[in-house]
Order: sequence, then structure tokens, then C-alpha cells
Amino acid sequence: MAVPSRSRRRAPTANGILTLLTDFGTADAFVGIMKGVILGMNRRARLVDLSHEVEPQNVLAGALLLRSAVDYFPRGTVHLVVVDPGVGSDRQALAIATTRAIFVGPDNGVLWPAAERLGLIRAHAVDCKQLARRKVVRLPVSRTFHGRDVFAPVAAYLSGGAPISSVGPTVDRLVELDIPACRVIDAALEGEVIHIDRFGNLITNIPAVELARFSEGRVSVSINGVQLRGILPSYAAVPEGRLLAVIGSWDLLEIAVRGGSAANRLGASRHAPVRVAAA
Amino acid sequence: MAVPSRSRRRAPTANGILTLLTDFGTADAFVGIMKGVILGMNRRARLVDLSHEVEPQNVLAGALLLRSAVDYFPRGTVHLVVVDPGVGSDRQALAIATTRAIFVGPDNGVLWPAAERLGLIRAHAVDCKQLARRKVVRLPVSRTFHGRDVFAPVAAYLSGGAPISSVGPTVDRLVELDIPACRVIDAALEGEVIHIDRFGNLITNIPAVELARFSEGRVSVSINGVQLRGILPSYAAVPEGRLLAVIGSWDLLEIAVRGGSAANRLGASRHAPVRVAAA
Amino acid sequence: MAVPSRSRRRAPTANGILTLLTDFGTADAFVGIMKGVILGMNRRARLVDLSHEVEPQNVLAGALLLRSAVDYFPRGTVHLVVVDPGVGSDRQALAIATTRAIFVGPDNGVLWPAAERLGLIRAHAVDCKQLARRKVVRLPVSRTFHGRDVFAPVAAYLSGGAPISSVGPTVDRLVELDIPACRVIDAALEGEVIHIDRFGNLITNIPAVELARFSEGRVSVSINGVQLRGILPSYAAVPEGRLLAVIGSWDLLEIAVRGGSAANRLGASRHAPVRVAAA
Repeated sequence: MAVPSRSRRRAPTANGILTLLTDFGTADAFVGIMKGVILGMNRRARLVDLSHEVEPQNVLAGALLLRSAVDYFPRGTVHLVVVDPGVGSDRQALAIATTRAIFVGPDNGVLWPAAERLGLIRAHAVDCKQLARRKVVRLPVSRTFHGRDVFAPVAAYLSGGAPISSVGPTVDRLVELDIPACRVIDAALEGEVIHIDRFGNLITNIPAVELARFSEGRVSVSINGVQLRGILPSYAAVPEGRLLAVIGSWDLLEIAVRGGSAANRLGASRHAPVRVAAA
Repeated sequence: MAVPSRSRRRAPTANGILTLLTDFGTADAFVGIMKGVILGMNRRARLVDLSHEVEPQNVLAGALLLRSAVDYFPRGTVHLVVVDPGVGSDRQALAIATTRAIFVGPDNGVLWPAAERLGLIRAHAVDCKQLARRKVVRLPVSRTFHGRDVFAPVAAYLSGGAPISSVGPTVDRLVELDIPACRVIDAALEGEVIHIDRFGNLITNIPAVELARFSEGRVSVSINGVQLRGILPSYAAVPEGRLLAVIGSWDLLEIAVRGGSAANRLGASRHAPVRVAAA
Repeated sequence: MAVPSRSRRRAPTANGILTLLTDFGTADAFVGIMKGVILGMNRRARLVDLSHEVEPQNVLAGALLLRSAVDYFPRGTVHLVVVDPGVGSDRQALAIATTRAIFVGPDNGVLWPAAERLGLIRAHAVDCKQLARRKVVRLPVSRTFHGRDVFAPVAAYLSGGAPISSVGPTVDRLVELDIPACRVIDAALEGEVIHIDRFGNLITNIPAVELARFSEGRVSVSINGVQLRGILPSYAAVPEGRLLAVIGSWDLLEIAVRGGSAANRLGASRHAPVRVAAA
């Protein structure tokens, strides 16, 4: 994803709210330790947990969860994201300004869908040596816990009002995820399965907002030769064992079996085409 | 439950503390999104999670958990409750003032036991159109996520000090739950099973405080022809597989089997009579 | 553990941050109730959850988790710990000042490793009668929930700046845990297994910081006749079923089997000797 080279839009001013999204779980003290680091640097930060139960190292799941939440936080919120299978490798650490929010996390795509949704203004790579001179980061940085040693300090620093340009050099391209856009073709909305969760639910690249734009009436959803009538409000709308189309928690169209696996039922895998048409 | 028509007691002044109780779990961002909405409206709210692990759509479980907690929060706390199987139906959204706390949630009984415990002063139905004119609620409201679109904004608004009468018209009757009161009959305290949890524990309508009032000495508990001697301090007081009577986390008398199901062991179901007598 | 009789070091001044570490889980309202009590006494406390998923009544697990976290909180943080199998017995409740942090919890060893790490200054036993006169504690105290009735009020009181000496008499000896220190013998670092977790991971008494001091180069780890080469950054560094040595979440050397039980594989139990040598 290319970063606009000379955006005229101003980065938002930090409002003191700092959210945390990780795959660390809450049984260990990892999240608490990050909060200790943050409060040690910015005693007035308002901390909000988005989730710490992202499936471990599932960058796409973290990215979609983040994208589904950012519209609901006030302008100037800092979102700290640590879903980071590449920790210890040479992937960059990023600080990103968008029209609404500031993001801090690894450059592995996890920030990309949310940044694209909100409108990217500028991106900076975290320069630990530079930040060590400003006493933001303490060297040496561990190879395994950048959440504590890099991301939390940078997020705390920005949530206190530091300019994003002070974290390091600008970046002109972000790592993207493999999420193709859905398209309208021949009066149908065409997309595909982009993720299969651990229950066998098929998550598509068709956002609720695109569905609403496509049709205000009743639609049918086709996948692997099966046609489902209507998009239901929740799993509870059908009996156990029945297939349904539903808007999931990431605000995307999902194909599911109540109490079962849609992936098994339909023999569907990633990239399976999904087609929505007026019913 | 009838609302007192002209209570002279004054509704408490919001103290800025806002608790959240839901059945959303913490894996998704639903709770985080509600907090974003709240902090966007009242940056100074002090947020406290009561629990987000109420069994999905179990209104009674949410109601009893809420009732067990409200005594311990300072006067003027706002409790936001979203256990709401009727979302999208015509059930009303409520804001309730009691002698100690302010409640916001659906009119399905979930607020009732706590409101009754604290002493109800007044109740108002949330009028979304009226609140949209005050910029509290944004229209249209979704059919599936009133936690985000209705309850969180109203709770944030009240936690900031808005008068409860400004959310909508007064209500003169609240939906109740099927929780009969226990009674003293012939020197015994008589109650019944009101809930069986997923472990098979039998939760009764006999509160710890009634037991203490009934007897300061040793008691026996009878259910389905079995008599248990004494009320034990915890499950750990008996060996695996043994029946016991214990005060559970909702401050109610429970009949349990350590490491097993009391419901199966006793063949007991909801409404089974329970009798406490001096031992 | 002997408390220094006349330490000249000053106890830290409370900074308003208060962490909570319990084995209560988050499904019930226990943790929320403790927070209600705390905010009722100190409205400005900044609450941070360390974890509420310590294995029930596992004092050693709570102690090691606490020790792994305390370095990352700013000076003057109050850490409230309730892993308390002896609740209702005559074990004392403690308030402890160290060079960096203030601790409140039971005198069962759970505070000891963290207090030792930070440097103990003074320890006081909580005197509920004395604190009741100061309106900190309300009598009678329950026999089963000292988290709510004793520890939360004392932690709130101290987080608001009260002097630690006002909670009760000085204590000159703390209960310790059975955690022997590791030692360097004949150019090897010798330790032992101090805990086996529910996955069969063998946790040793060899801290990461001692390993770094012992050797900057490659090491081998010997246990029960098996020699492991190198200490790996994470479980993911080996295939399923393979033994490895790794630094665990408590910053201690662990012997593990990816996807299996090292305790079963090695027939190792608590106190099994572990030896680290240059490779």
C-alpha cells in the first residue's frame, strides 16, 4: 500500500486514549507488563483492551478485528497492536497517522485494513536508536518481546502528544494482506472466502456496508453450488445444523452452519467464490 | 414490578464510575467498541468490567451476578448491562434510578433484582428519537447491536451527569423474572431451585443474608429426600463426588457435588423445593 | 525471609497505580467487586489487571508471575495479590514496602519472590481492628472473601498515600516458598525443577538473567540424562513432539516438549537437577 507522498491532511492530535490488541491471552502477565510500561511513560493514558484473544500469530484475524473497531473511537485515539509472528526478524515497527486514529504495530499487514479504511496520512518506521536518545526506548531491545520494549513505549510516547515524525524516518509503502476487494459484476456482488475460522465458518471479503449499498432488498448468496436465501441477523435464526449467511463480528458476510462447520459441509476452502444477487 | 409513582427520594448523582456487564465474551471487539463509544462521549468515565462471560442470553444469570455486585460500588455508579436476547424486538431500553446506583439495560428483567435490592426510585424508557435530537444517539440504530448504539451512549450520557428524566418517558412497571421469594414456614426456611448452571449446580432462591437471619447456629438442608448437614464454606471442604450445601458466587444457597452434577445426582430440576431447618 | 530491622531506605510514595493479581477468573463478579471497593475509597486509583487466571490456589504460580512483572511498573505502584488458599485460617495479611513497589496480600509466600527481587524495606501485618477505627476496614470481616473485605481496602488506602506503618504492627519474618537459588559449581550453572505446569512443562529455578550472566555464548542444558543444545527463543523453533529448553513467561529456564509433556517424556519430577554448561 503506497503512502501518500505529500498529504495535506493533518495527523490527529492524541486524545489520551490508547487501545491494546494482542494475541497474548490474559493468563500471563504480558499485557499487564505492557500497561506498566505505558503508565510509566504517560500516567494519564486511558487504556482500553480491544482483545487479547486473537488466534496466536493470525495477522489477518487481528487486522479484521482492528478494522471493525476503529470507527467507534474518538479522533486522536492511539491503537497499539501486537500480533507479530515476525518478532526478531527484520520486519519494521510502524507508527501510522490516519484521518482519525494513530496506529503502532509491526509492518506485517495487521494495521493495513484499518489504515486504509480511515485514510492513511503518513507512516514512519520506528528507529530504536533515535528513540533511545530521547529516552523513549531502552537499549538493547529484546528479540522476543517488542510489545514491551518497542511498541508499548512508542504508543505511550505518541499518546502523550509527541509528533509522529519523531519516531523515525518516513515509510512510503506498507505491507498489505491478501484481501482482494469484492466487485459488482453483471448485477451481482462477487467476492471470495478470505478466512476460515476454527469453527469452520467461512469469512468473505464482502463488507456489510457493501451489501447495504448493493441492495436494500432481499438477496441470495451462492457458494460452491449452494444457494442461501437472505442474510440472517444471527446464528440463532436457524435450527442446529442448518447453513446460513450472516454478518459476522468483523462486519463481513460469513457462511456458517449453526453448531457445525460450513467449511466441511460445503467442501469450501480459501478463495472459494461467493456471489450475492437480488433474490 | 411497580415503580413508585411519586418517590420523594432523590436519584443519586453520577460519580463517573461506569461498570459493564455483558454476555459478549472478550475474544471479539464488542466490549472494546462499547468503551470507545462511551469514552467518545464522556472522556472522564471510569470503566470497570463486572463480567463479559455471562452465559449467552441467560438473563437470570446476568441478573443474579449484577445483584451480587451492586452493594460494593459507591453511590452514583452507572451499571450498563447488555444481556439482551430480545434485541431487535420491541422490548424497551431502560434507565433506572435507585437509592444507590443508576442502571441502563433492556427491560427483560436483568435489572430487576438489583433495582429491587437497592430500592427503585424511578424508571425511564429510552426514547431514541428524543436522544438523537440531543446528539446522544445516532439514527438509524442497528437491529443487532444496541449495546453500541443505544445502551453505551445512554450510560455515557448519564455517567456525565445528565438527568435521567431526559432519556425518555417514565415507565410505571418493569418486567420481572421468575424468582419467587423464600419464606419461613413452621420454623423452617422454604425455597426452591431457581437455576441449574452448566455444571449441574442447583442454585436456590435462598440468599445468604436470609440464612443468617434465620439461624446463627448449625442448619440442615433438605432437597428431594436428601438431607445435608451444615452449609460449608467452599467446594474444597468435601472430597470429590460428595454432595454439599454452599453459598455460591451470587450469595445464594447452592446444592452442589464436588467435581460432579448435583442435578443428575438428585434428579432435581427447576422449582424443586428446598428446606432449611435448625440441625 | 528476615525483614531488615532498621532499613534506612525510604518506602516509595504511592503513584496511584494499583495492579490486581488473583486466581478468581473473570466469569464471576469477584474482581469487579474488589474494584468497586477500591474506587469507593480512592476514586483516582489507576487499576491494571496483571492476571486473574492464576491456577486456583497455586501460590508458587502467582508468586512467579508477580515477580516477572514488577520491574515494569513505575516506582510507587501498589500490587494487590489474592492467591489465598489459607483464607479463613490464621495466616496474616501483609502490607510490604520495597525499594520500588508496595505489596498487599496474604503472608503465604506469594509476595516473597517479588519483594526479594526489588529489595525489602519493611513489612506490616494488617490489623483489622485498628483499620476499622480508621474506617478503612468494615467489621466483621467475612471468612471467605478477604480480597473484598481486607486486601482491597488496604490496597486502596495505601494507593491514596497512607503510610504503610498505619496498617498494623511490623513483621520481622515473611513466609517463604520452597524456591532454592541456582548456583555456579565447577563452571556449570546448577539448578532444579521447581514447578511442573498443567502441560507438563518443567520450570526451573534458573532465571534468564542468571543465564545471561553465566554465558554469552551457546550453552547446553542437561536433565535426567538428556542433553539439549542451546536455549531456543520459543516453542515454535522446534517441530511438534521435540524437547527444547526455552525461557518461559516467568523469565525462568523451562524444559518443554512442543505439543507434549516434558514431565512424562523425561520422567522428571519436582527437584530434578538441571545443569547448564558452555556448549
